[in-house]
Order: sequence, then structure tokens, then C-alpha cells
Amino acid sequence: MPYYIGDVIKDEKRMVARTAEQHKKRGVDVKLNTRVDEIDTDKGVVRLSDDTTMPYDYLVMGTGGNAFLPGIPGQDLEGVFTLKTLTDAIRMKTYIHEKRCRKAIILGAGFVALEMSEAMRTLGIDTLIVYRGALPARRWDSEFSEAILEEMNTNKVTFVPHTKPVAIERGRGFLLRLITGEGEMEADIILIALGVSPNIKLAEDIGLQIGETGAIQVDPSQRTSREEVYAVGDCCEAYHRVSKKWLHFPLGDVANKQGRVAGQNVGGSSMTFPGIVGSQSFKLFNLEIAATGLDEEEAAASGYDPVSNIIWGNPIAASLAASLPGLRKLGLKLVADKSTGKLLGAQAVGTENVVSRINALSVALWAGMDLDEIGYLDFAYAPPFSGAWDPIHTAAQILKRKL
Amino acid sequence: MPYYIGDVIKDEKRMVARTAEQHKKRGVDVKLNTRVDEIDTDKGVVRLSDDTTMPYDYLVMGTGGNAFLPGIPGQDLEGVFTLKTLTDAIRMKTYIHEKRCRKAIILGAGFVALEMSEAMRTLGIDTLIVYRGALPARRWDSEFSEAILEEMNTNKVTFVPHTKPVAIERGRGFLLRLITGEGEMEADIILIALGVSPNIKLAEDIGLQIGETGAIQVDPSQRTSREEVYAVGDCCEAYHRVSKKWLHFPLGDVANKQGRVAGQNVGGSSMTFPGIVGSQSFKLFNLEIAATGLDEEEAAASGYDPVSNIIWGNPIAASLAASLPGLRKLGLKLVADKSTGKLLGAQAVGTENVVSRINALSVALWAGMDLDEIGYLDFAYAPPFSGAWDPIHTAAQILKRKL
Repeated sequence: MPYYIGDVIKDEKRMVARTAEQHKKRGVDVKLNTRVDEIDTDKGVVRLSDDTTMPYDYLVMGTGGNAFLPGIPGQDLEGVFTLKTLTDAIRMKTYIHEKRCRKAIILGAGFVALEMSEAMRTLGIDTLIVYRGALPARRWDSEFSEAILEEMNTNKVTFVPHTKPVAIERGRGFLLRLITGEGEMEADIILIALGVSPNIKLAEDIGLQIGETGAIQVDPSQRTSREEVYAVGDCCEAYHRVSKKWLHFPLGDVANKQGRVAGQNVGGSSMTFPGIVGSQSFKLFNLEIAATGLDEEEAAASGYDPVSNIIWGNPIAASLAASLPGLRKLGLKLVADKSTGKLLGAQAVGTENVVSRINALSVALWAGMDLDEIGYLDFAYAPPFSGAWDPIHTAAQILKRKL
Repeated sequence: MPYYIGDVIKDEKRMVARTAEQHKKRGVDVKLNTRVDEIDTDKGVVRLSDDTTMPYDYLVMGTGGNAFLPGIPGQDLEGVFTLKTLTDAIRMKTYIHEKRCRKAIILGAGFVALEMSEAMRTLGIDTLIVYRGALPARRWDSEFSEAILEEMNTNKVTFVPHTKPVAIERGRGFLLRLITGEGEMEADIILIALGVSPNIKLAEDIGLQIGETGAIQVDPSQRTSREEVYAVGDCCEAYHRVSKKWLHFPLGDVANKQGRVAGQNVGGSSMTFPGIVGSQSFKLFNLEIAATGLDEEEAAASGYDPVSNIIWGNPIAASLAASLPGLRKLGLKLVADKSTGKLLGAQAVGTENVVSRINALSVALWAGMDLDEIGYLDFAYAPPFSGAWDPIHTAAQILKRKL
């Protein structure tokens, strides 16, 4: 399902244009393809790339993130891409078709790198993931990363671990060559997917407070250190309800929520963003992969005394599971606090009903539930969707005994 | 997916035998195919159908429910079934094969009736559902029942509404004939699926307190009005955390939980059952149907001032939904309390990720969340699983404006 570089792009372009149109009808001036070059906080105006200025009473910064670059020679060669904007995706897709790409190298093994490996394979492109670490999907337990690696292998995505890129050059057999500490490999396209850092240039220019994470500091109403300036999305921090820390957690749903909160406040309604619990998911071929809350390391760093377990249960009733080919066990990891018994985090991987479990646990985490409560939660049980005891119940009850 | 009468039966038989075996190994005597005819509470013994007696210190009653019968002539004819036990399912399956049944009538339109209509169709049997009401699945909003009816029609299950059975006779063209107030219809097999009532005969014999629901009264430790007697499952009541009432809610997962609680207490660990929020689901052909909590009527009867709304959203990201044939909108209904803004109940219907939403909302309901909180819950967002704003967020935010 190559949804980042597939035909949905056309729809998204239409959507952006339509949204701009709708805003204009309501008296909101939308300037597409225009950059803010400078903010003059004394005069309360922004200077635009078309050399005009616009006045403001309130300013909402949604400057997003910048794709991390490895800082190696050749990272700006034709055929080397990062994926941040819609335009990046369109450019990449055009390049793939025009150059008839047969082979791709992806640097990084986070969720965007993995999603893109599926997109490449769907287009019939040989795909290598080159990563400095041992296993993909670092946020997840190594037991789950092994399952993810297996899914990559099944779908002919080659994983090259323990490998650092050194330079990119023009290739011989293919268009590009990646030089690494461990040798060379060639491909027609190289995607750099090493994560994002907050884009805080304008924020720094006007002296906004920057958090320890490197992202713009905001309060729960999304206001920055300047009363009239708000920040939302990948450029700013978000409050994590479990770690009780302000983090940089650049995900689209968080950005949407923060945007609405800032909009409400600018519009005169007082509203606060209740924070996040760190929920996240992605799909990789036939696997669903999801997580919420903290892992043991993060929990310990937040002052908890973490204890955890992993179970492999049936995503649907055991009596039905046997008759469904391709269905695999659902891996579920819970992390809890030893002294209070409270849930601190959860991770899951499997072919079905994975995100479903993590979403239910996200709500439990949000509400601050302990393992006793989670072990007896009332779910909508029917054999096609779970056993009478859900893996969530089982995992909670088993972990409870470890407290 | 004919899981109630399909091949899983063999596995379940093995499972029962294996469970009995395991218990015996641990010194628990298991008597299969034995009935308790009488309980002598003075002597602390039960008299069994094999004319022996067994002593007890504690007694756990799991007498289950009885299938409702319409009380019409012919309801005990060969070919007329109720579905309570594994044996019922085996008998029905054997009958279908031996008589080469071509046509079935199902009395009732609750979840068991509907699940069985799918099982019958899977076996290629013409299927009629005869119901006294206007629409199937009474627990659900009529807008959702209409969607369920459409799914039945698509899959050639004929729904005969507003029709009461009067008698069953031997048939001419088929083996049986159903006489109704609205005319006659024939079939080879008739399934009575009108719900269950608690089996309280033994409980009444020993004078246990029976609740207003007609089921055995228990306290949160599953203890009945007699200190040494516990009750669990379909024969007893369960505490509903939202209505704050003791209800008869005969579902398998509730029975499992109550059984474990009673077992813990009998075994010497003190434990209470935290109650239910009324979560339930079933599958009907390509539809998932689920609900939790209270509907408006139940909410009003529990002293709330209910307000509700229904939205039809995308079960996955809108940009992806268009490219998936067969995917339908997800209908989500929320019920909340006008004065507190707290969630009171939710219902959903659709082709994907329906139970997922109801489970997340079940946890929110369990935790007593209000619409403000639910509108900003942190879910594991990715396009294959939801939009950046989940239908849950949208529904909560829209309903909030109605308060």
C-alpha cells in the first residue's frame, strides 16, 4: 500500500487547494507557495518571500521539522531524497518513473523508512535498508523488531545492519553508489529517512524559548514564551502525560490537535491541550506495529521502577485462529511501575487487531489505570475479535504477579 | 464463518476433556455428564443424578441460562432447536447434514440469531429470520439496524418483521411449517434464538436471594445471600458501572471473569469483580457490530439526561478509504450526559476497526471520561488504521456542542 507516494497525492493536492479556497470564503487570506523570511515582533509584521509584509495580532508557528541529513558527501546528488513535503513525494515518484528505478537504498530503519520500503517493493523495486543499529524499529522491544525483520525478509526487503553511510557517488551499474564503512552498494535512488528535527530558525530569530529537546517551548494552550506567538506541530514540544516531561514527538495527529487548540485560543475560546501518551503505529506488509507510553529505559529515566513482560497470544479466539491461514500470534508487551502497579507503556506486533489493543491501552494509560483494573476491563468480546480473555487481560494479570 | 456449528466443535470437545484431565491431575475431581439434583445446605452436600452425594465447604453455582421458548405448539418437534450447549450445536449440525436441510427459519433477531443466519448461509441454506419487531439487533440504533438489515439482504438472509410465531407443524414441501399471525412458511430446520433467562432452579430450592432481574443476587466477590455459596455467569447478576445497577448480562467474557473472581475468593485470596460497562460485539458477514454502555432509554432510566449523535466517518484515513473497494463508512453513535458531559454509551457498525473503537470507548467509559477528554485522546494514528482525527474524536467534539 504505497500511500505516501501513490495516487493519493493528486487527492491531497486537491484537498490543499480546496482547504485554501474554503478559508478564503471565510475571509482568511491563504498564501500558498509563500515563505515567511522574517518576523518583526516590534511592528507585529511578517516579511514574506514575495517582498510584501503582513501584519498580525497573533502569530501561530507551524514551521514543522527538517529531515535529518547524515552530513556526508553526495547527499545532495540527483536521486538522493528526503521525504518531508508532498512535493518531495511527487518529485520522488516522478524520478522513479522517469529513471525506471530498479533498486533503492533507504538510510534509516524507523517507521517512515519501513513504510517506504513497502512502497518501493510495491513498485517492484529491489530495496535495501541500511542502518547503523542491529535491528529495525528501535522503539520496539528487540523481540518485536525480530518479527519485523522477518516480515521484511519475507517481502524481500534486505536489511543491512551495523552499517554507517560515508559518502554517495555516481554509480556504474546503477545511478548511485553508497559508500559505507562496511563496503559499497549501488542503487538508482537513495532515500534518507533518519528522522526529523524541529525547524526553529524563525523561532530563534525572534528569541523564543527553546526547550531541552531543541523544539519550541509551549504551554498547554500552545503559547510560546511570547504571549502573542503560538506554536504547533513538529516545531514544538508536547507534554507527555506518563513521563510528565515535555517531549519532541513529531506526529501528524498530535500536530492536528495542537493546531486546533491554538486556533481556539487565538479565536478567543480558552482551551488547553491535555497532552499525549506517546501512541504510534505503522503498517508493514501484513504486520501491524503499534506502541504507546514508555519503554523500560524511558520509564526509569522518568523516575519509575519499571517491570515488563511479553506475551504471544491469539488476536482472535483460539478456536478460530487455527482455521485462518496467515494469521500469526499477537505479541503484546506491557511495562508497569513496580511500586504503584500502574501501566506505563505497551507495545504490540501482529497481523490483526494490534492497533486496536494499543488504542485501548492508550486510553487506560491516559486514565492512569493499574494492572488490576486492566486485567478485568470490559471489552466487546466475540470470537472473531478476541478470546473471552483478551491478550490485554492475560498480559496484565501475568505482569501483576511480577510486581 | 460458522464457528458455532463448524469444525471447531471437535476442538472444543477435546478442550473440555483436556481441561477435565488437567483438573484431575491437580486433585480436582471432575464429573462430566452429571447433574446436581439437589443441594442440602444443612448437611453441606449435593445429591447427584447418579444417586451419589458429594460434600462441600463452598459451592459455586454456574448453572447458566435457559433458552427462551415461545411457548407455542410444536416447539418440541424434531428439527426445532435452541442453541445453548455444545451438544445442541452438534445435534443441529448432524440434523442439517442427515436431513440435507435446504431452508432454515430463525426465530429472533438478536446477535445469536444473526450469527446463526450467517452460519446457515455459509452452509448454502436458504435462511429466514422471523421477528416480532421492525428491525434486527434491537440494542442498536435503528440507523445501524438498517445497515445490518442491508447486510442481511446483500447476503440473501430474508428478514420477516412484525411477525409472531403461533405454532410449528410438520411441513409438506419442507420438513416443518411455521404458522404465524401473518401467514405460514416452511423450512427444514427451525432455530429458536429468543435470548436466555437465568437458570435459578437450584438457587430457589435453597432459598438464595434472587434479584429484580430474575438472576441470582451476588456481591462484588460473587457471593450469594448464603455465605458459603457463590454464583457466576449467566445464572447471576453483574454490576454495571455506568447505570450503577445490577443487571443480567449473560455473555461469555463476563462469566469467565466472575468465575475467576469466585475461584480466588474460594481459594482464600480476597478479590472483587469490578463490574461491567456492557461491552458487546458480533460479526455478520462483512460487518462488525459493537456497543458499550447505555443507550438513551437506559441512560434516562438510570437518572441521566442523555444526549446523543451519530456520525458516519472513515474507518481508515480518507485518502486511503477511496482506494479500497468494499470498505464502507463507520457509523459511530455516542451517548453522553447533558449535565456532566460524561460518556454514557457508544455503538458502532462498519466493515473495519469497529470493535477497536468500541473497545477504546469501553475503557473511556470505565474510567468515567467526559467528551472533552475523549475528543483529544491520544490514539496510535497511521493512515491504514484511522485519520489523524479518529471518528471517536470527531463524534465526541460534535456531541460536546450539543450539551
